[in-house]
Amino acid sequence: MTDTKVHLLDGGTLVIDGFHAFWNRGPAGEVRFPCYSVLIEHADGRYIFDTGYDFDHVMRVLPFEKPIQEKSQTLPGQLAKLGLKTGDINYVINSHYHFDHCGGNKYFGEACTLCHAKELEASGNCQPFEHLGYSDMSFAPALAAKRGLKLPPDPLLDMYTPKFETVTGDQEIAKGLWLFETPGHTAGHYSLLVELRNRRPMLFTADACYSKKNLDMMCISSFHLDPTASLASMKRLKALAE
Amino acid sequence: MTDTKVHLLDGGTLVIDGFHAFWNRGPAGEVRFPCYSVLIEHADGRYIFDTGYDFDHVMRVLPFEKPIQEKSQTLPGQLAKLGLKTGDINYVINSHYHFDHCGGNKYFGEACTLCHAKELEASGNCQPFEHLGYSDMSFAPALAAKRGLKLPPDPLLDMYTPKFETVTGDQEIAKGLWLFETPGHTAGHYSLLVELRNRRPMLFTADACYSKKNLDMMCISSFHLDPTASLASMKRLKALAE
Repeated sequence: MTDTKVHLLDGGTLVIDGFHAFWNRGPAGEVRFPCYSVLIEHADGRYIFDTGYDFDHVMRVLPFEKPIQEKSQTLPGQLAKLGLKTGDINYVINSHYHFDHCGGNKYFGEACTLCHAKELEASGNCQPFEHLGYSDMSFAPALAAKRGLKLPPDPLLDMYTPKFETVTGDQEIAKGLWLFETPGHTAGHYSLLVELRNRRPMLFTADACYSKKNLDMMCISSFHLDPTASLASMKRLKALAE
Repeated sequence: MTDTKVHLLDGGTLVIDGFHAFWNRGPAGEVRFPCYSVLIEHADGRYIFDTGYDFDHVMRVLPFEKPIQEKSQTLPGQLAKLGLKTGDINYVINSHYHFDHCGGNKYFGEACTLCHAKELEASGNCQPFEHLGYSDMSFAPALAAKRGLKLPPDPLLDMYTPKFETVTGDQEIAKGLWLFETPGHTAGHYSLLVELRNRRPMLFTADACYSKKNLDMMCISSFHLDPTASLASMKRLKALAE
């Protein structure tokens, strides 16, 4: 068995307001933040955790988030730097289905897609205040059709029929790869913990905790479905991290 | 039976940010808003719906909300303009127990205090992100003691032992005086509808709907315990208003 390896893949940046990043605290003002995916090379296969945003989608639907993304910051571009193709990926795991975490799913038509059962359900039946969050439904064309959303023409989507495998509860999906339930930001948010040989595990909190500052202040983001659950998830992540 | 009469009592103003008033939308910037109480003269007695904020409390705990309140804008001052004393009030109804809705409760030691059972419970056991909201516990000295909050010295509080009567569900508490459950902003928020002779009823939404603009945009405030419930309450108020 080979050692598990982790790569952070750069997916460009977006802008939100300080009042979005720090609920009710701010201060106001643009906060540009990185979007990244995680590639895990594991004995069982290659996993991608989150797939960033699609530049064209953001420019069309949320241009106020001012995307900056070079071609080299798309997933095909990032994988190419490692000598990999999108077809080399076996599993896509989505922490949740907000547009900035699933925009690149369409590149992985061959992979099996893992997510929380509640998250897949929520993305197809979301609250009105979640419509922008769940605006890129290209990761699930069938669900998009159910919501009455017409996807823009895209050659990639013509052949894309994802295979979903839904999960609930905390799960070790492969040896040393743990999904921990961290709901609140969305209905079925998962965080990922990767155990590694010869070093401490790595914990990827996705949007259950935006930043170290959020954790230090115990301040959740203003994008949330359930702030009580969201705060409980942040406390859970703090305990896991320690 | 005399006709029911309604008076709006001016309690001064406070400042919040545009991102507080319009959740995730803003725009940023100071929004100065009025705090008011409602006096209802009814055949069964005199009711006060909400009691505004206490200037000293805000200056001590939330000075960034920049209170502006003349002495004439306290409840004794407002009632005096109508030739009334605080002892003339029979019932205090609190929409909820945020500091800007219960700051004047202490003036009404003789009155019976009505509120939602869940709200009284929540104010004594709130979420961490609700601490500022529920920071003025002078309305319930016994509950303040239970939360370990020391109330500042105040001659009024020396003799203040409120009598609570908790309510659940929608209730006609007196002929033509309706409390409607509108939770989400807090656990047990009530809105008040007053039926009047020779004119349409008046609906007081308190913090379940900050303003006409919130209603038009169907945008809840950023201060909330449960955004899904909060939005459902706003829809309910829209239907009631229509």
